[in-house]
Amino acid sequence: MTATLIEGTSVRAVVPASSANLGPGFDTLGLALGLYDEITVTAVRSGLAVRVDGEGASEVPWGPSHLVVRAIERGLEAAGVWANGLEVVCHNRIPHSRGLGSSASAAVGGLSAANALVAAVDPSLMLAPDTLVQLASEFEGHPDNASASVLGGAVVSWSREVGPPEGPRHFAAVRLDVHPDLGATVLIPGEKSSTAHTRGLLPDLVPHRDAAFTASRSALAVVALTSRPDLLHLATEDRLHQPYRAEALPTTTRWVRTLRDHGHAATVSGAGPTVLVLGTESLSADLRTQAEDDGMTVLELDIADAVESSLVVD
Amino acid sequence: MTATLIEGTSVRAVVPASSANLGPGFDTLGLALGLYDEITVTAVRSGLAVRVDGEGASEVPWGPSHLVVRAIERGLEAAGVWANGLEVVCHNRIPHSRGLGSSASAAVGGLSAANALVAAVDPSLMLAPDTLVQLASEFEGHPDNASASVLGGAVVSWSREVGPPEGPRHFAAVRLDVHPDLGATVLIPGEKSSTAHTRGLLPDLVPHRDAAFTASRSALAVVALTSRPDLLHLATEDRLHQPYRAEALPTTTRWVRTLRDHGHAATVSGAGPTVLVLGTESLSADLRTQAEDDGMTVLELDIADAVESSLVVD
Repeated sequence: MTATLIEGTSVRAVVPASSANLGPGFDTLGLALGLYDEITVTAVRSGLAVRVDGEGASEVPWGPSHLVVRAIERGLEAAGVWANGLEVVCHNRIPHSRGLGSSASAAVGGLSAANALVAAVDPSLMLAPDTLVQLASEFEGHPDNASASVLGGAVVSWSREVGPPEGPRHFAAVRLDVHPDLGATVLIPGEKSSTAHTRGLLPDLVPHRDAAFTASRSALAVVALTSRPDLLHLATEDRLHQPYRAEALPTTTRWVRTLRDHGHAATVSGAGPTVLVLGTESLSADLRTQAEDDGMTVLELDIADAVESSLVVD
Repeated sequence: MTATLIEGTSVRAVVPASSANLGPGFDTLGLALGLYDEITVTAVRSGLAVRVDGEGASEVPWGPSHLVVRAIERGLEAAGVWANGLEVVCHNRIPHSRGLGSSASAAVGGLSAANALVAAVDPSLMLAPDTLVQLASEFEGHPDNASASVLGGAVVSWSREVGPPEGPRHFAAVRLDVHPDLGATVLIPGEKSSTAHTRGLLPDLVPHRDAAFTASRSALAVVALTSRPDLLHLATEDRLHQPYRAEALPTTTRWVRTLRDHGHAATVSGAGPTVLVLGTESLSADLRTQAEDDGMTVLELDIADAVESSLVVD
């Protein structure tokens, strides 16, 4: 017998943005950022109503194809819980197509909201965080952003084949508790980026010495994030993706270079175009003004905790 | 004015063996192993006398070209201390050319002994651990083994250019405190290996996906070593060096595969031929006997602390 959502139950999920790669951790390192989308879901008698306000309200496809709705449905299905009807309200703050993991956040937020709905029916049916990482990463195809939004803090994520090479993959991640003084600044350019396009710029082959270099910096990044923020500049050096995408992201590349020259641990956030700066200190007013004059939105963000969802009690 | 060693001062350095790479951490991850060389150095009126017993006693070149002596001289020189004459006695237990970092241990032991001699003259002239990492790595050309023997525990090490590409490099490392339950088993084949030869087997180019894979596993290895030994099997997967050297090390390769198939986190230690197994449990008696029947010496070792040196008081 399948459990059914109780009409009138309303839940809210608050899901953080994320930054992936952090320099050398291509497709593996992720960081949850204190910029949040909110998703409110109410179980209703029938039908599906979706309302979106905020970032991307005019662009995101409506109706059942909406990623948040697909994620809610996937979460309910995985828990074995049936919905007669749903009302979904998305308050989006995470900018789209800027390298801040908005689609991963949408998937994680939808799954987490589903989990809160499931909890209201039968807490024993709730999905564990590992399952949320798996399901959210399946939407994405890679686990770095999704697991950061699920687990919070910084993450080391990975995937493995569970059958034939092009078949389904197992996705997993561990959370790192970042150094308490660590914060992030993001510089968000006006223009968007397509991950699909920038992935196409990566070569099939890279020098062995660059691969060894990246393995070294990636290991060091774990140390720097958790206990040695003084090593972040060194630990965010990358040779696997940023150099190959540099020409496609001229403003981003120029700013990463400028900030690094000023001693900041700056990297391209995900596939860009946002620039992520990790550190224990803010940018100087001078650099900030220059970036704003260059059309960037500059935000100082905390490292976020895990996605949260709970029952909305009127 | 240069300080001079006090005639009759005698010091002893106890220096651990080490294993490098640990799977994905090519030229960067290292681990100090509880198998020790001992070096006793006495300041004498004049001349140089060297005596070696134990492993490699019949092979190591005698006289001033001996690596331990060169390291003692380099350490004294760096500290600005002069020796009129030295008597050096090496008790070697670390097997040579087996991938257990014996040459790095010799360099580290010599430098550390020099440091104890320096301390007896003027403690303010002593070399800091960072300097020992630099000097020992210069002997080696890479910092993974040397920094493990200098710092103990596990290390993430790295190097950077300080001038032209083929010029001197800056070497550095951070120590990781490994999980308290973690131990190592080494399987040491009878035959030797040449690092120079096995390095030649590495390709100039590797697939981007293998580089990304290795960056992921390398970051995960830091997590596994320090807090999640249950992830060591996954975290020791490598695609950067072991596959390319597999044919040159048939016994080693067969044993890495067998042990991994049994769930052990087995890797090639350094450039081989020793097999390193990391974990919280011993090998089964069955596997151990099979390995011994195959000509391997099997040793269970603690993770070692840093090199130690002190004054010998009669």
